[in-house]
Amino acid sequence: MAVGPGELPNFLPVKGVRLGIASAGIKKPGRKDLVVFELAPGSRVAGIFTRNQFCAAPVTLSREHLAAKAPRYLLINTGNANAGTGEQGMHDAQTCCEALATAAGVSREEVLPFSTGVIGEPLPVDRITGAIPQALANGDEHHWAQAAAGIMTTDTRPKGATREVSLGGHKVAISGISKGAGMIRPNMATMLGFIATDARIEPGLLQTLASELGEKSFNRITIDGDTSTNDCCMLMASGQYSGPEITADSADLPRLREALWAVYLELAHAIVRDGEGASKFVTIEVKGASSPEEALDVAYTIAHSPLVKTALFASDPNWGRILAAVGRAGVPDLDLDALEIFLGDVCLVRHGGRAPDYSEERGQAVMDQEEIVITIDLKRGAISETVWTCDLSHDYVTINAEYRT
Amino acid sequence: MAVGPGELPNFLPVKGVRLGIASAGIKKPGRKDLVVFELAPGSRVAGIFTRNQFCAAPVTLSREHLAAKAPRYLLINTGNANAGTGEQGMHDAQTCCEALATAAGVSREEVLPFSTGVIGEPLPVDRITGAIPQALANGDEHHWAQAAAGIMTTDTRPKGATREVSLGGHKVAISGISKGAGMIRPNMATMLGFIATDARIEPGLLQTLASELGEKSFNRITIDGDTSTNDCCMLMASGQYSGPEITADSADLPRLREALWAVYLELAHAIVRDGEGASKFVTIEVKGASSPEEALDVAYTIAHSPLVKTALFASDPNWGRILAAVGRAGVPDLDLDALEIFLGDVCLVRHGGRAPDYSEERGQAVMDQEEIVITIDLKRGAISETVWTCDLSHDYVTINAEYRT
Repeated sequence: MAVGPGELPNFLPVKGVRLGIASAGIKKPGRKDLVVFELAPGSRVAGIFTRNQFCAAPVTLSREHLAAKAPRYLLINTGNANAGTGEQGMHDAQTCCEALATAAGVSREEVLPFSTGVIGEPLPVDRITGAIPQALANGDEHHWAQAAAGIMTTDTRPKGATREVSLGGHKVAISGISKGAGMIRPNMATMLGFIATDARIEPGLLQTLASELGEKSFNRITIDGDTSTNDCCMLMASGQYSGPEITADSADLPRLREALWAVYLELAHAIVRDGEGASKFVTIEVKGASSPEEALDVAYTIAHSPLVKTALFASDPNWGRILAAVGRAGVPDLDLDALEIFLGDVCLVRHGGRAPDYSEERGQAVMDQEEIVITIDLKRGAISETVWTCDLSHDYVTINAEYRT
Repeated sequence: MAVGPGELPNFLPVKGVRLGIASAGIKKPGRKDLVVFELAPGSRVAGIFTRNQFCAAPVTLSREHLAAKAPRYLLINTGNANAGTGEQGMHDAQTCCEALATAAGVSREEVLPFSTGVIGEPLPVDRITGAIPQALANGDEHHWAQAAAGIMTTDTRPKGATREVSLGGHKVAISGISKGAGMIRPNMATMLGFIATDARIEPGLLQTLASELGEKSFNRITIDGDTSTNDCCMLMASGQYSGPEITADSADLPRLREALWAVYLELAHAIVRDGEGASKFVTIEVKGASSPEEALDVAYTIAHSPLVKTALFASDPNWGRILAAVGRAGVPDLDLDALEIFLGDVCLVRHGGRAPDYSEERGQAVMDQEEIVITIDLKRGAISETVWTCDLSHDYVTINAEYRT
């Protein structure tokens, strides 16, 4: 199951960014399971990484390499997360980077490794190093769709987004791919996102954009609350377009940011739409908060409530469960009389109880839709935050309980 | 489904505590749905209440009455939670207390109200007040089993515990009942617990015992993390036994505390064993922590992880999910190399990865059991905390998704 249409866009090629795909046979023979991003010299890369302290070896190594040198290659394998693998895992990730660096004639620190798949199994290093030449030879600016498929684990469909934006008369391309359908898939890890543009972006600004845009998109989605060991989202700027460098003072920055934001959001939403067992795409907006923290506390408490999620699965306008989640979110001194809860444009709760004009029919009409917006107005400030989630269905339990049988 | 045997004990009557049961027809005609505790004059009561800010009207009123006067009556209805009912709900709770007070010849403040059932429906006040005389007339020291059944909502079985303890040669009885099978049942609210003893206990000590014992038992169980709007756990001491008052300095206090603790723990565990769709009873012990807070953060992150819970349902020793939950629990500077994770007595994780002596067969042998202990040794301090939970099964989704169909 997945929510809404899921066709890949016609990806715009990004000058200076080539994608190579290969079959390493990591988990299944024949499957395209290795993707290499090749970046032109002078490219800049920024990213955000999982906050899980048991982060995978490739996450630790990518952080180190990114701090040491400007990356020229990203090496991504599916089928094995190289997480929970201790010292051997770190050694294996280094060996893979070394093999790609040698084949490409760069230093090991210029390669960033990413792994996704089963946790706790040793990485099949020989298969990966054996397939690296094939992936390098396959490098092409037009291979975005193949790369989107190549990073999938048990995703039901590939995910991509693409935009063009004109900066001072120069056309800039932005393309991106993502994967993941739970914070952790059945014994599988992870959310990954890779976004590239041919704009030239000042390095400090690039990291600011990667952090800000990632924070409000990839870090605002939740399937089951299980932050994985391998999450990464990388922003690459090849600088191959013909315009000037974009800095924090550029008049073009808002336009670039808007186009990047559209790609980030589309990729993040695509992960929720393909969430494990998802039949609903749910937007939870908390407004009228006095801080982002309390807005997010309320939003995530609702988004992670198994009772709210099973009611969404059943298309049941069971507003008592939303009210109870708001009440236990830990926000001190809630004004229960002032706050309001809406399902779509139907007010559910006002003055601490069911809104006088609420009717089961009106609530049901909203719940029957595939895309649902829940709005909480805390009426205590001017801060808003939004998170996106999906429902909790029998398929979620089946996928996660029966994976290894 | 429920885990383990669930027979009620042979309840010891508690001198000075009479229980009356009646059929008010709150939700279904004929069902025993009203329970009244009648306490002898001089009895003392202490309790703990839900921290949900959207707490139900009876919770607010019970707190007020308890602060104002020594209670003589507890009035408990099932079938309607009187939560999310705004001002009308408070008025309705007051009316019910008033009716019982008038019939019994006490003041309204001497009655504590408790409600459990559907959220957001108006309380059927007339049915409750109409049945109060019947409940009063039914009052008897031997009606514990009927009361245990009378407070159920969709619990699959009644829950009770009883102990006798000798204090300075005087026999003291302790009996208790509880209900609840999720923090919130399908559109149903709540965990309730009522424990009574005929010991005479100094009022300050009684509240200390109610808080401490409740904190380590009822506040350490979780089915789905959804703290309800109606949770209450009350400790009553009638003082009708023939011994002296127990104070904080009494030599008998440790023995009394131990017997009370056994009753609290048994009642709390009974709720988990009858958790919605539960097929496993799971103990999560976090030791070697540097504070109770971090121990509980780790324990609850595991207990609430849908991925861990579905693996438990499938009897799948999927240790990567436990490791990932520990890593995202928010404890700063975890020593990943030192910490250890055990399933029963089988070590899963050591030195940041799968323990060298772990085998799938050994893990599977533990997972196949109905009662499972997961131990995390953080190796950074001397603090331990334990929580209890159950698995996440298809039945949980069915119960919560299909309740209103």
